[in-house]
Amino acid sequence: MPPKIASFSTAKGKGYGVVTDSGIIDLSARHGEVWPTLREVIEAGALSRLAEEAATMTPDLALSDIRFEIPIPMPEKLICVGVNFPDRNEEYKDGQSAPSNPSLFIRFPRSFTGHDQPLIRPPESPQLDYEGEIVIVIGKGGRRIPEAEALGHIAALSLCNEGTIRDWVRHAKFNVTQGKNFDRTGSIGPWLVPFTDEAQLADIKLETRVNGEVRQQDRTSRMIFSFRKIINYISTFTTLVPGDVIVTGTPTGAGARFDPPIWLKPGDVVEVEADGIGILRNTIADEA
Amino acid sequence: MPPKIASFSTAKGKGYGVVTDSGIIDLSARHGEVWPTLREVIEAGALSRLAEEAATMTPDLALSDIRFEIPIPMPEKLICVGVNFPDRNEEYKDGQSAPSNPSLFIRFPRSFTGHDQPLIRPPESPQLDYEGEIVIVIGKGGRRIPEAEALGHIAALSLCNEGTIRDWVRHAKFNVTQGKNFDRTGSIGPWLVPFTDEAQLADIKLETRVNGEVRQQDRTSRMIFSFRKIINYISTFTTLVPGDVIVTGTPTGAGARFDPPIWLKPGDVVEVEADGIGILRNTIADEA
Repeated sequence: MPPKIASFSTAKGKGYGVVTDSGIIDLSARHGEVWPTLREVIEAGALSRLAEEAATMTPDLALSDIRFEIPIPMPEKLICVGVNFPDRNEEYKDGQSAPSNPSLFIRFPRSFTGHDQPLIRPPESPQLDYEGEIVIVIGKGGRRIPEAEALGHIAALSLCNEGTIRDWVRHAKFNVTQGKNFDRTGSIGPWLVPFTDEAQLADIKLETRVNGEVRQQDRTSRMIFSFRKIINYISTFTTLVPGDVIVTGTPTGAGARFDPPIWLKPGDVVEVEADGIGILRNTIADEA
Repeated sequence: MPPKIASFSTAKGKGYGVVTDSGIIDLSARHGEVWPTLREVIEAGALSRLAEEAATMTPDLALSDIRFEIPIPMPEKLICVGVNFPDRNEEYKDGQSAPSNPSLFIRFPRSFTGHDQPLIRPPESPQLDYEGEIVIVIGKGGRRIPEAEALGHIAALSLCNEGTIRDWVRHAKFNVTQGKNFDRTGSIGPWLVPFTDEAQLADIKLETRVNGEVRQQDRTSRMIFSFRKIINYISTFTTLVPGDVIVTGTPTGAGARFDPPIWLKPGDVVEVEADGIGILRNTIADEA
Protein backbone atom coordinates (compact mmCIF):
# COMPACT_ATOMS: atom_id res chain seq x y z
CA MET A 1 0.00 0.00 0.00
CA PRO A 2 1.31 3.51 -0.80
CA PRO A 3 1.67 5.89 2.18
CA LYS A 4 -1.24 8.11 3.20
CA ILE A 5 -0.40 11.67 4.20
CA ALA A 6 -3.11 13.80 5.78
CA SER A 7 -3.60 17.34 7.00
CA PHE A 8 -5.31 17.53 10.37
CA SER A 9 -6.11 19.72 13.33
CA THR A 10 -5.88 18.97 17.03
CA ALA A 11 -6.60 21.01 20.15
CA LYS A 12 -3.10 22.47 19.70
CA GLY A 13 -3.47 23.60 16.09
CA LYS A 14 -2.97 22.37 12.56
CA GLY A 15 -0.54 19.80 11.26
CA TYR A 16 0.16 17.03 8.80
CA GLY A 17 1.41 13.48 9.05
CA VAL A 18 1.32 9.89 7.90
CA VAL A 19 -1.83 7.93 8.68
CA THR A 20 -1.28 4.35 9.85
CA ASP A 21 -3.67 1.79 11.30
CA SER A 22 -2.31 2.52 14.78
CA GLY A 23 -2.30 6.34 14.58
CA ILE A 24 -0.70 9.43 13.09
CA ILE A 25 3.04 9.99 12.66
CA ASP A 26 3.22 13.75 13.09
CA LEU A 27 5.47 15.11 10.33
CA SER A 28 4.58 18.75 11.02
CA ALA A 29 6.11 18.43 14.50
CA ARG A 30 9.39 17.55 12.73
CA HIS A 31 9.24 19.75 9.60
CA GLY A 32 6.55 22.35 10.24
CA GLU A 33 8.96 25.25 10.70
CA VAL A 34 10.43 24.75 7.25
CA TRP A 35 7.26 23.54 5.54
CA PRO A 36 4.15 24.89 7.33
CA THR A 37 1.67 22.85 5.25
CA LEU A 38 1.66 20.02 2.71
CA ARG A 39 1.69 22.67 -0.01
CA GLU A 40 5.25 23.62 0.95
CA VAL A 41 6.23 19.96 1.37
CA ILE A 42 5.08 19.34 -2.21
CA GLU A 43 6.79 22.50 -3.45
CA ALA A 44 10.03 21.15 -1.96
CA GLY A 45 9.47 17.84 -3.73
CA ALA A 46 9.65 16.12 -0.33
CA LEU A 47 6.30 14.31 -0.08
CA SER A 48 7.48 10.77 -0.88
CA ARG A 49 10.72 11.14 1.08
CA LEU A 50 8.94 12.27 4.26
CA ALA A 51 6.56 9.33 3.92
CA GLU A 52 9.49 6.92 3.55
CA GLU A 53 11.23 8.35 6.61
CA ALA A 54 8.04 7.85 8.59
CA ALA A 55 7.95 4.14 7.75
CA THR A 56 10.29 3.39 10.68
CA MET A 57 8.55 5.65 13.19
CA THR A 58 5.81 4.95 15.71
CA PRO A 59 2.63 7.03 15.87
CA ASP A 60 2.57 10.28 17.87
CA LEU A 61 -1.18 10.77 17.88
CA ALA A 62 -4.22 8.51 18.03
CA LEU A 63 -6.71 8.78 15.20
CA SER A 64 -9.22 9.91 17.80
CA ASP A 65 -6.95 12.87 18.64
CA ILE A 66 -7.22 14.49 15.23
CA ARG A 67 -9.81 15.99 12.93
CA PHE A 68 -9.10 15.53 9.22
CA GLU A 69 -8.69 18.75 7.24
CA ILE A 70 -8.54 19.17 3.47
CA PRO A 71 -5.05 18.04 2.39
CA ILE A 72 -3.87 21.37 0.91
CA PRO A 73 -5.39 24.03 3.17
CA MET A 74 -4.68 26.99 0.87
CA PRO A 75 -3.84 26.01 -2.71
CA GLU A 76 -3.21 28.87 -5.09
CA LYS A 77 -5.84 27.32 -7.36
CA LEU A 78 -8.62 24.81 -6.92
CA ILE A 79 -10.09 23.99 -10.33
CA CYS A 80 -12.94 21.57 -11.06
CA VAL A 81 -13.71 19.82 -14.34
CA GLY A 82 -17.38 19.40 -15.28
CA VAL A 83 -19.01 16.80 -17.55
CA ASN A 84 -16.11 14.36 -17.87
CA PHE A 85 -17.63 10.86 -17.90
CA PRO A 86 -19.76 9.11 -20.54
CA ASP A 87 -23.52 9.69 -20.25
CA ARG A 88 -22.91 12.81 -18.18
CA ASN A 89 -23.18 14.96 -21.30
CA GLU A 90 -26.41 13.17 -22.30
CA GLU A 91 -27.81 13.82 -18.82
CA TYR A 92 -28.10 17.51 -19.73
CA LYS A 93 -30.62 16.64 -22.50
CA ASP A 94 -29.76 19.85 -24.36
CA GLY A 95 -29.11 18.13 -27.69
CA GLN A 96 -25.48 19.22 -27.71
CA SER A 97 -22.85 16.72 -28.79
CA ALA A 98 -19.89 15.85 -26.61
CA PRO A 99 -17.86 18.94 -25.76
CA SER A 100 -14.49 19.53 -27.42
CA ASN A 101 -12.94 21.19 -24.37
CA PRO A 102 -13.47 20.60 -20.66
CA SER A 103 -15.84 22.84 -18.74
CA LEU A 104 -14.03 24.33 -15.78
CA PHE A 105 -15.12 26.10 -12.64
CA ILE A 106 -13.43 27.23 -9.48
CA ARG A 107 -14.19 26.50 -5.85
CA PHE A 108 -12.85 28.22 -2.78
CA PRO A 109 -11.15 26.01 -0.16
CA ARG A 110 -13.76 27.02 2.40
CA SER A 111 -16.42 25.28 0.31
CA PHE A 112 -14.81 22.00 1.45
CA THR A 113 -14.40 20.18 4.73
CA GLY A 114 -12.22 17.20 5.62
CA HIS A 115 -12.83 13.46 5.84
CA ASP A 116 -15.23 12.35 8.59
CA GLN A 117 -16.62 15.86 9.03
CA PRO A 118 -20.25 16.64 8.14
CA LEU A 119 -21.14 18.29 4.85
CA ILE A 120 -23.31 21.26 5.72
CA ARG A 121 -26.80 21.71 4.27
CA PRO A 122 -27.54 25.46 4.34
CA PRO A 123 -30.98 26.86 5.19
CA GLU A 124 -31.23 28.40 1.70
CA SER A 125 -31.87 25.11 -0.10
CA PRO A 126 -32.67 21.41 0.46
CA GLN A 127 -30.89 20.48 -2.81
CA LEU A 128 -27.53 19.30 -1.45
CA ASP A 129 -26.13 16.72 -3.88
CA TYR A 130 -22.99 14.54 -4.04
CA GLU A 131 -20.42 14.15 -6.82
CA GLY A 132 -17.59 11.67 -6.28
CA GLU A 133 -14.36 12.64 -8.03
CA ILE A 134 -10.63 11.95 -8.20
CA VAL A 135 -8.29 14.77 -7.22
CA ILE A 136 -4.81 15.39 -8.62
CA VAL A 137 -2.37 17.68 -6.85
CA ILE A 138 0.27 19.42 -8.94
CA GLY A 139 3.89 18.84 -7.89
CA LYS A 140 5.86 20.50 -10.63
CA GLY A 141 4.45 23.74 -12.00
CA GLY A 142 4.42 24.88 -15.58
CA ARG A 143 2.66 26.59 -18.47
CA ARG A 144 1.53 24.85 -21.67
CA ILE A 145 2.58 21.46 -20.33
CA PRO A 146 2.57 18.90 -23.20
CA GLU A 147 0.27 15.91 -22.72
CA ALA A 148 3.24 13.59 -23.03
CA GLU A 149 4.85 15.16 -19.95
CA ALA A 150 1.71 15.93 -17.97
CA LEU A 151 1.68 12.98 -15.58
CA GLY A 152 5.18 13.97 -14.40
CA HIS A 153 3.62 17.15 -12.99
CA ILE A 154 1.35 15.26 -10.55
CA ALA A 155 2.61 14.94 -6.96
CA ALA A 156 -0.30 13.17 -5.34
CA LEU A 157 -3.85 11.85 -5.58
CA SER A 158 -6.86 12.31 -3.37
CA LEU A 159 -10.67 12.15 -3.48
CA CYS A 160 -13.39 14.76 -3.54
CA ASN A 161 -17.08 14.81 -2.79
CA GLU A 162 -17.80 17.83 -4.94
CA GLY A 163 -20.99 18.60 -3.05
CA THR A 164 -23.31 20.99 -4.84
CA ILE A 165 -26.42 23.04 -4.09
CA ARG A 166 -28.26 22.22 -7.31
CA ASP A 167 -30.77 25.04 -7.59
CA TRP A 168 -28.05 27.64 -6.91
CA VAL A 169 -25.94 26.27 -9.78
CA ARG A 170 -28.50 27.89 -12.12
CA HIS A 171 -29.40 30.82 -9.91
CA ALA A 172 -28.10 33.36 -12.42
CA LYS A 173 -27.65 33.79 -16.17
CA PHE A 174 -24.17 32.27 -16.38
CA ASN A 175 -21.79 30.10 -14.36
CA VAL A 176 -22.18 27.66 -11.54
CA THR A 177 -20.11 29.63 -9.00
CA GLN A 178 -22.65 30.09 -6.24
CA GLY A 179 -24.06 26.53 -6.24
CA LYS A 180 -20.52 25.18 -6.02
CA ASN A 181 -19.28 27.44 -3.24
CA PHE A 182 -21.55 27.22 -0.22
CA ASP A 183 -19.28 26.87 2.80
CA ARG A 184 -18.40 23.25 3.67
CA THR A 185 -20.82 21.64 1.19
CA GLY A 186 -18.04 19.43 -0.24
CA SER A 187 -15.08 17.47 1.05
CA ILE A 188 -11.54 16.56 -0.01
CA GLY A 189 -9.47 13.72 1.43
CA PRO A 190 -9.08 11.62 3.41
CA TRP A 191 -5.38 12.08 2.56
CA LEU A 192 -2.82 12.40 -0.21
CA VAL A 193 -1.30 9.32 -1.82
CA PRO A 194 2.00 10.11 -3.58
CA PHE A 195 1.74 9.58 -7.33
CA THR A 196 4.67 7.58 -8.65
CA ASP A 197 3.27 5.26 -11.34
CA GLU A 198 0.81 5.80 -14.19
CA ALA A 199 -1.01 2.60 -13.17
CA GLN A 200 -2.32 4.46 -10.11
CA LEU A 201 -4.59 6.47 -12.46
CA ALA A 202 -4.86 4.65 -15.78
CA ASP A 203 -7.89 2.45 -15.13
CA ILE A 204 -9.11 2.65 -11.56
CA LYS A 205 -12.65 2.29 -10.28
CA LEU A 206 -14.38 5.38 -8.83
CA GLU A 207 -17.53 4.74 -6.80
CA THR A 208 -19.91 6.84 -4.70
CA ARG A 209 -22.25 5.27 -2.16
CA VAL A 210 -25.06 6.86 -0.13
CA ASN A 211 -25.97 4.92 3.00
CA GLY A 212 -24.19 1.94 1.45
CA GLU A 213 -26.11 2.05 -1.87
CA VAL A 214 -23.96 2.46 -4.98
CA ARG A 215 -25.03 5.62 -6.82
CA GLN A 216 -22.06 6.37 -9.07
CA GLN A 217 -19.55 3.92 -10.51
CA ASP A 218 -17.19 4.25 -13.42
CA ARG A 219 -13.54 3.80 -14.40
CA THR A 220 -10.94 6.46 -15.17
CA SER A 221 -10.14 4.78 -18.49
CA ARG A 222 -13.56 6.04 -19.68
CA MET A 223 -13.02 9.71 -18.87
CA ILE A 224 -13.81 12.06 -21.77
CA PHE A 225 -10.81 14.26 -20.98
CA SER A 226 -7.80 12.31 -19.70
CA PHE A 227 -5.66 13.48 -16.80
CA ARG A 228 -3.01 14.35 -19.40
CA LYS A 229 -5.42 16.45 -21.43
CA ILE A 230 -6.77 18.26 -18.34
CA ILE A 231 -3.29 19.33 -17.25
CA ASN A 232 -2.35 20.34 -20.78
CA TYR A 233 -5.56 22.35 -21.27
CA ILE A 234 -5.59 24.18 -17.95
CA SER A 235 -1.91 25.07 -18.23
CA THR A 236 -2.59 26.65 -21.62
CA PHE A 237 -4.19 29.65 -19.93
CA THR A 238 -2.81 29.65 -16.38
CA THR A 239 0.58 28.79 -14.92
CA LEU A 240 0.17 25.77 -12.67
CA VAL A 241 2.17 25.85 -9.42
CA PRO A 242 2.98 23.20 -6.80
CA GLY A 243 0.00 22.45 -4.58
CA ASP A 244 -2.63 23.38 -7.16
CA VAL A 245 -5.64 21.10 -6.83
CA ILE A 246 -7.60 19.77 -9.81
CA VAL A 247 -10.90 17.93 -9.28
CA THR A 248 -11.34 15.84 -12.38
CA GLY A 249 -15.06 15.19 -12.90
CA THR A 250 -17.82 12.90 -11.69
CA PRO A 251 -19.56 9.83 -13.20
CA THR A 252 -23.26 9.79 -13.96
CA GLY A 253 -25.66 9.13 -11.09
CA ALA A 254 -25.81 12.22 -8.87
CA GLY A 255 -29.03 12.66 -6.91
CA ALA A 256 -30.24 15.34 -9.36
CA ARG A 257 -30.55 12.69 -12.09
CA PHE A 258 -33.18 10.60 -10.33
CA ASP A 259 -36.88 11.20 -11.01
CA PRO A 260 -37.81 12.66 -8.64
CA PRO A 261 -34.36 13.90 -7.52
CA ILE A 262 -32.97 12.47 -4.28
CA TRP A 263 -31.19 15.11 -2.20
CA LEU A 264 -28.87 14.44 0.72
CA LYS A 265 -30.41 14.89 4.15
CA PRO A 266 -29.07 15.04 7.70
CA GLY A 267 -27.87 11.65 8.88
CA ASP A 268 -26.99 10.34 5.42
CA VAL A 269 -23.49 8.90 4.97
CA VAL A 270 -21.73 9.45 1.64
CA GLU A 271 -18.63 7.49 0.69
CA VAL A 272 -16.39 8.19 -2.30
CA GLU A 273 -13.94 5.39 -3.00
CA ALA A 274 -11.25 4.83 -5.60
CA ASP A 275 -8.82 1.95 -6.02
CA GLY A 276 -5.52 2.64 -4.30
CA ILE A 277 -6.56 6.02 -2.87
CA GLY A 278 -9.03 5.20 -0.11
CA ILE A 279 -12.54 6.03 1.10
CA LEU A 280 -13.67 9.60 1.74
CA ARG A 281 -16.60 9.44 4.14
CA ASN A 282 -18.86 12.27 5.28
CA THR A 283 -22.16 12.57 7.06
CA ILE A 284 -24.67 15.35 6.37
CA ALA A 285 -25.76 17.94 8.90
CA ASP A 286 -27.94 21.01 8.84
CA GLU A 287 -26.11 24.26 9.38
CA ALA A 288 -26.04 25.03 13.08
CA MET B 1 -8.50 63.98 -2.30
CA PRO B 2 -8.58 60.70 -0.35
CA PRO B 3 -5.22 58.94 0.13
CA LYS B 4 -3.99 56.44 -2.46
CA ILE B 5 -2.34 53.30 -1.12
CA ALA B 6 -0.56 51.01 -3.59
CA SER B 7 1.22 47.68 -3.61
CA PHE B 8 4.47 47.74 -5.54
CA SER B 9 7.72 45.95 -6.24
CA THR B 10 11.24 47.32 -6.45
CA ALA B 11 14.62 45.72 -7.12
CA LYS B 12 14.61 44.86 -3.38
CA GLY B 13 11.26 43.10 -3.26
CA LYS B 14 7.58 43.80 -2.64
CA GLY B 15 6.02 46.50 -0.55
CA TYR B 16 3.16 48.94 -0.11
CA GLY B 17 2.85 52.63 0.52
CA VAL B 18 1.08 55.92 -0.05
CA VAL B 19 1.32 57.39 -3.54
CA THR B 20 1.89 61.16 -3.69
CA ASP B 21 2.73 63.47 -6.59
CA SER B 22 6.35 63.55 -5.45
CA GLY B 23 6.82 59.82 -4.79
CA ILE B 24 5.98 56.87 -2.57
CA ILE B 25 5.88 56.90 1.23
CA ASP B 26 6.99 53.35 2.00
CA LEU B 27 4.64 51.97 4.66
CA SER B 28 5.91 48.40 4.31
CA ALA B 29 9.36 49.52 5.48
CA ARG B 30 7.66 50.68 8.70
CA HIS B 31 4.96 48.02 9.19
CA GLY B 32 5.88 45.11 6.90
CA GLU B 33 6.99 42.80 9.71
CA VAL B 34 3.60 42.98 11.37
CA TRP B 35 1.52 43.32 8.21
CA PRO B 36 3.32 41.75 5.22
CA THR B 37 0.77 42.98 2.62
CA LEU B 38 -2.22 45.30 2.38
CA ARG B 39 -4.43 42.29 3.09
CA GLU B 40 -3.09 42.14 6.64
CA VAL B 41 -3.27 45.94 6.97
CA ILE B 42 -6.97 45.76 6.06
CA GLU B 43 -7.53 42.79 8.36
CA ALA B 44 -6.11 44.91 11.20
CA GLY B 45 -8.46 47.76 10.28
CA ALA B 46 -5.41 50.00 9.87
CA LEU B 47 -5.68 51.22 6.26
CA SER B 48 -7.02 54.72 6.91
CA ARG B 49 -4.84 55.22 9.99
CA LEU B 50 -1.63 54.35 8.14
CA ALA B 51 -2.60 56.73 5.35
CA GLU B 52 -3.22 59.51 7.87
CA GLU B 53 0.14 58.96 9.55
CA ALA B 54 1.82 59.19 6.16
CA ALA B 55 0.34 62.64 5.54
CA THR B 56 3.21 64.24 7.46
CA MET B 57 5.98 62.16 5.90
CA THR B 58 8.16 62.77 2.88
CA PRO B 59 8.50 60.21 0.06
CA ASP B 60 11.05 57.39 0.36
CA LEU B 61 10.91 56.26 -3.25
CA ALA B 62 10.49 57.94 -6.62
CA LEU B 63 7.60 56.77 -8.77
CA SER B 64 10.22 55.67 -11.29
CA ASP B 65 11.69 53.31 -8.64
CA ILE B 66 8.59 51.15 -8.36
CA ARG B 67 6.45 48.87 -10.45
CA PHE B 68 2.77 48.83 -9.50
CA GLU B 69 1.39 45.46 -8.40
CA ILE B 70 -2.23 44.46 -7.86
CA PRO B 71 -3.28 45.99 -4.52
CA ILE B 72 -4.08 42.73 -2.68
CA PRO B 73 -1.48 40.23 -3.92
CA MET B 74 -3.21 37.11 -2.57
CA PRO B 75 -6.82 37.64 -1.58
CA GLU B 76 -8.62 34.58 -0.29
CA LYS B 77 -11.26 35.25 -2.93
CA LEU B 78 -11.46 37.28 -6.10
CA ILE B 79 -15.03 37.26 -7.37
CA CYS B 80 -16.34 38.98 -10.50
CA VAL B 81 -19.92 40.02 -11.27
CA GLY B 82 -21.12 39.61 -14.88
CA VAL B 83 -23.91 41.49 -16.68
CA ASN B 84 -24.48 44.32 -14.20
CA PHE B 85 -25.21 47.44 -16.27
CA PRO B 86 -28.25 48.32 -18.40
CA ASP B 87 -28.08 47.17 -22.05
CA ARG B 88 -25.46 44.55 -21.12
CA ASN B 89 -28.16 41.93 -20.74
CA GLU B 90 -29.65 42.95 -24.12
CA GLU B 91 -26.20 42.62 -25.70
CA TYR B 92 -26.47 38.86 -25.31
CA LYS B 93 -29.49 38.81 -27.70
CA ASP B 94 -30.73 35.56 -26.17
CA GLY B 95 -34.25 36.77 -25.53
CA GLN B 96 -33.88 36.37 -21.77
CA SER B 97 -35.20 39.08 -19.49
CA ALA B 98 -33.04 40.79 -16.91
CA PRO B 99 -31.57 38.26 -14.49
CA SER B 100 -32.88 38.03 -10.94
CA ASN B 101 -29.49 37.17 -9.41
CA PRO B 102 -25.99 38.27 -10.33
CA SER B 103 -23.84 35.98 -12.49
CA LEU B 104 -20.56 35.34 -10.72
CA PHE B 105 -17.24 33.94 -11.78
CA ILE B 106 -13.82 33.65 -10.21
CA ARG B 107 -10.43 34.83 -11.40
CA PHE B 108 -7.03 33.90 -10.05
CA PRO B 109 -4.75 36.76 -8.98
CA ARG B 110 -2.21 35.73 -11.61
CA SER B 111 -4.72 36.63 -14.33
CA PHE B 112 -4.08 40.27 -13.38
CA THR B 113 -1.15 42.65 -13.57
CA GLY B 114 -0.66 46.06 -11.98
CA HIS B 115 -1.15 49.62 -13.21
CA ASP B 116 1.22 50.73 -15.99
CA GLN B 117 2.19 47.14 -16.84
CA PRO B 118 1.23 45.59 -20.19
CA LEU B 119 -1.76 43.30 -20.50
CA ILE B 120 -0.50 40.17 -22.24
CA ARG B 121 -2.05 38.90 -25.46
CA PRO B 122 -1.38 35.13 -25.58
CA PRO B 123 -0.50 33.31 -28.80
CA GLU B 124 -3.67 31.20 -28.50
CA SER B 125 -6.05 34.00 -29.51
CA PRO B 126 -6.22 37.54 -30.93
CA GLN B 127 -9.47 38.22 -29.06
CA LEU B 128 -8.14 40.18 -26.06
CA ASP B 129 -10.90 42.53 -24.90
CA TYR B 130 -11.26 45.16 -22.15
CA GLU B 131 -13.91 45.55 -19.44
CA GLY B 132 -13.65 48.56 -17.12
CA GLU B 133 -15.00 47.89 -13.63
CA ILE B 134 -15.08 49.20 -10.08
CA VAL B 135 -13.49 47.04 -7.38
CA ILE B 136 -14.55 46.80 -3.75
CA VAL B 137 -12.26 45.30 -1.13
CA ILE B 138 -13.87 43.74 1.94
CA GLY B 139 -12.72 45.11 5.29
CA LYS B 140 -15.00 43.40 7.76
CA GLY B 141 -15.86 39.79 6.99
CA GLY B 142 -19.18 38.07 7.48
CA ARG B 143 -21.82 35.64 6.29
CA ARG B 144 -25.34 36.61 5.16
CA ILE B 145 -24.56 40.31 5.54
CA PRO B 146 -27.82 42.30 5.37
CA GLU B 147 -28.01 44.90 2.56
CA ALA B 148 -28.56 47.62 5.15
CA GLU B 149 -25.15 46.88 6.70
CA ALA B 150 -23.27 45.90 3.56
CA LEU B 151 -21.43 49.15 2.86
CA GLY B 152 -19.90 49.01 6.34
CA HIS B 153 -18.04 45.87 5.22
CA ILE B 154 -16.11 47.70 2.46
CA ALA B 155 -12.57 48.82 3.34
CA ALA B 156 -11.45 50.30 0.04
CA LEU B 157 -12.12 50.92 -3.64
CA SER B 158 -10.04 50.30 -6.72
CA LEU B 159 -10.41 49.76 -10.48
CA CYS B 160 -10.17 46.74 -12.74
CA ASN B 161 -9.65 46.16 -16.41
CA GLU B 162 -11.28 42.76 -16.43
CA GLY B 163 -9.45 41.76 -19.63
CA THR B 164 -10.93 38.72 -21.34
CA ILE B 165 -10.02 36.31 -24.14
CA ARG B 166 -13.43 36.26 -25.81
CA ASP B 167 -13.36 33.04 -27.77
CA TRP B 168 -12.08 31.11 -24.74
CA VAL B 169 -15.02 32.34 -22.64
CA ARG B 170 -17.18 29.94 -24.68
CA HIS B 171 -14.57 27.29 -25.27
CA ALA B 172 -16.50 24.64 -23.36
CA LYS B 173 -20.07 23.71 -22.52
CA PHE B 174 -20.35 25.74 -19.34
CA ASN B 175 -18.61 28.58 -17.52
CA VAL B 176 -16.28 31.37 -18.56
CA THR B 177 -13.33 30.24 -16.42
CA GLN B 178 -10.68 29.79 -19.08
CA GLY B 179 -11.39 32.99 -21.07
CA LYS B 180 -11.19 34.97 -17.82
CA ASN B 181 -8.00 33.45 -16.48
CA PHE B 182 -5.21 33.75 -19.00
CA ASP B 183 -2.16 34.98 -17.10
CA ARG B 184 -1.88 38.79 -16.92
CA THR B 185 -4.74 39.53 -19.30
CA GLY B 186 -6.37 41.92 -16.85
CA SER B 187 -5.28 44.56 -14.34
CA ILE B 188 -6.28 45.90 -10.92
CA GLY B 189 -5.23 49.24 -9.48
CA PRO B 190 -3.65 51.67 -9.61
CA TRP B 191 -4.18 51.75 -5.83
CA LEU B 192 -6.69 51.44 -3.01
CA VAL B 193 -8.72 54.43 -1.88
CA PRO B 194 -10.12 53.95 1.64
CA PHE B 195 -13.92 53.81 1.63
CA THR B 196 -15.38 56.06 4.30
CA ASP B 197 -18.51 57.63 2.79
CA GLU B 198 -21.36 56.19 0.70
CA ALA B 199 -21.04 59.15 -1.70
CA GLN B 200 -17.78 57.60 -2.95
CA LEU B 201 -19.86 54.87 -4.64
CA ALA B 202 -23.47 56.06 -4.90
CA ASP B 203 -23.40 57.77 -8.30
CA ILE B 204 -19.92 57.94 -9.79
CA LYS B 205 -18.93 57.87 -13.44
CA LEU B 206 -17.06 54.82 -14.76
CA GLU B 207 -15.36 55.21 -18.13
CA THR B 208 -13.08 53.08 -20.32
CA ARG B 209 -10.99 54.60 -23.10
CA VAL B 210 -8.89 52.90 -25.77
CA ASN B 211 -6.21 55.13 -27.25
CA GLY B 212 -8.15 58.09 -25.86
CA GLU B 213 -11.50 57.10 -27.44
CA VAL B 214 -14.36 56.59 -24.98
CA ARG B 215 -15.69 53.02 -25.37
CA GLN B 216 -17.59 52.45 -22.13
CA GLN B 217 -19.28 55.05 -19.93
CA ASP B 218 -21.94 54.66 -17.31
CA ARG B 219 -22.76 55.58 -13.71
CA THR B 220 -22.90 53.34 -10.65
CA SER B 221 -26.42 54.55 -9.84
CA ARG B 222 -27.57 52.54 -12.89
CA MET B 223 -26.10 49.21 -11.84
CA ILE B 224 -28.59 46.32 -11.99
CA PHE B 225 -27.24 44.84 -8.74
CA SER B 226 -26.15 47.46 -6.21
CA PHE B 227 -22.98 47.18 -4.16
CA ARG B 228 -25.21 46.39 -1.19
CA LYS B 229 -26.98 43.59 -3.04
CA ILE B 230 -23.72 42.10 -4.35
CA ILE B 231 -22.24 41.83 -0.85
CA ASN B 232 -25.48 40.45 0.55
CA TYR B 233 -25.80 37.85 -2.24
CA ILE B 234 -22.21 36.61 -2.25
CA SER B 235 -22.11 36.35 1.53
CA THR B 236 -25.22 34.16 1.41
CA PHE B 237 -23.12 31.23 0.17
CA THR B 238 -19.55 32.05 1.22
CA THR B 239 -18.06 33.72 4.29
CA LEU B 240 -16.40 36.94 3.20
CA VAL B 241 -13.09 37.75 4.88
CA PRO B 242 -10.91 40.89 5.03
CA GLY B 243 -9.07 41.47 1.77
CA ASP B 244 -11.58 39.67 -0.43
CA VAL B 245 -11.83 41.41 -3.79
CA ILE B 246 -15.11 41.87 -5.67
CA VAL B 247 -15.11 43.17 -9.25
CA THR B 248 -18.55 44.63 -9.75
CA GLY B 249 -19.37 44.51 -13.48
CA THR B 250 -18.75 46.45 -16.67
CA PRO B 251 -20.89 48.87 -18.73
CA THR B 252 -21.86 48.13 -22.33
CA GLY B 253 -19.29 48.81 -25.05
CA ALA B 254 -16.58 46.15 -24.87
CA GLY B 255 -14.78 45.46 -28.15
CA ALA B 256 -16.78 42.25 -28.67
CA ARG B 257 -19.94 44.33 -29.16
CA PHE B 258 -18.72 46.19 -32.25
CA ASP B 259 -19.50 44.83 -35.73
CA PRO B 260 -16.96 43.63 -36.61
CA PRO B 261 -15.46 43.23 -33.13
CA ILE B 262 -12.45 45.39 -32.26
CA TRP B 263 -9.83 43.48 -30.27
CA LEU B 264 -6.95 45.02 -28.37
CA LYS B 265 -3.58 44.87 -30.10
CA PRO B 266 0.00 45.54 -29.08
CA GLY B 267 0.64 49.23 -28.56
CA ASP B 268 -2.94 50.09 -27.58
CA VAL B 269 -3.44 52.03 -24.36
CA VAL B 270 -6.50 51.27 -22.24
CA GLU B 271 -7.59 53.55 -19.41
CA VAL B 272 -10.28 52.78 -16.85
CA GLU B 273 -11.31 55.83 -14.83
CA ALA B 274 -13.81 56.42 -12.05
CA ASP B 275 -14.58 59.57 -10.10
CA GLY B 276 -12.58 59.76 -6.89
CA ILE B 277 -10.63 56.54 -7.48
CA GLY B 278 -8.21 57.35 -10.30
CA ILE B 279 -7.09 56.12 -13.71
CA LEU B 280 -5.90 52.56 -14.29
CA ARG B 281 -3.75 52.59 -17.42
CA ASN B 282 -2.27 49.62 -19.29
CA THR B 283 -0.66 49.04 -22.63
CA ILE B 284 -0.99 45.80 -24.59
CA ALA B 285 1.91 43.50 -25.47
CA ASP B 286 2.24 40.13 -27.11
CA GLU B 287 3.46 37.38 -24.83
CA ALA B 288 7.24 37.22 -24.95
